[in-house]
Amino acid sequence: MKARIKVMLKNGVLDPQGKAIEHALGSLGFPGVASVRQGKLFEVELAETDPAKARAAIEEMSKKLLANTVIENYAIELDEK
Amino acid sequence: MKARIKVMLKNGVLDPQGKAIEHALGSLGFPGVASVRQGKLFEVELAETDPAKARAAIEEMSKKLLANTVIENYAIELDEK
Repeated sequence: MKARIKVMLKNGVLDPQGKAIEHALGSLGFPGVASVRQGKLFEVELAETDPAKARAAIEEMSKKLLANTVIENYAIELDEK
Repeated sequence: MKARIKVMLKNGVLDPQGKAIEHALGSLGFPGVASVRQGKLFEVELAETDPAKARAAIEEMSKKLLANTVIENYAIELDEK
């Protein structure tokens, strides 16, 4: 089973990387960019076939390794096929 | 209008960061992890309200700045509201 985990900085946490991209897009001639936030995306292939167990494992992984929950939010998507 | 751009390494391109996470998950006691790939996620807030124009602008941004199309694929999602 495949899972996708999106990790983004929480609202209110400064995102200097996003800001840099915002400015770079401005200099490249893209005028209407109001804001850019950058996050991370993980695609994890699991041996587990039970969706509930897979989700629980991914939750654990996100909390322990993939996201820093002090400053980041994560969202999990399971490909249930 | 808000757009989300997912940038992932193409299949076949070595992903050492993903490999490192895979090993780290193994050492943390998650046994059934077959593979991990890491990518980037951008959330761009645009002034543009026309979906077709917004998508065209995001395509341009992705090709010029956000993705390295030699080794990376990108996918665009528009929040049309």
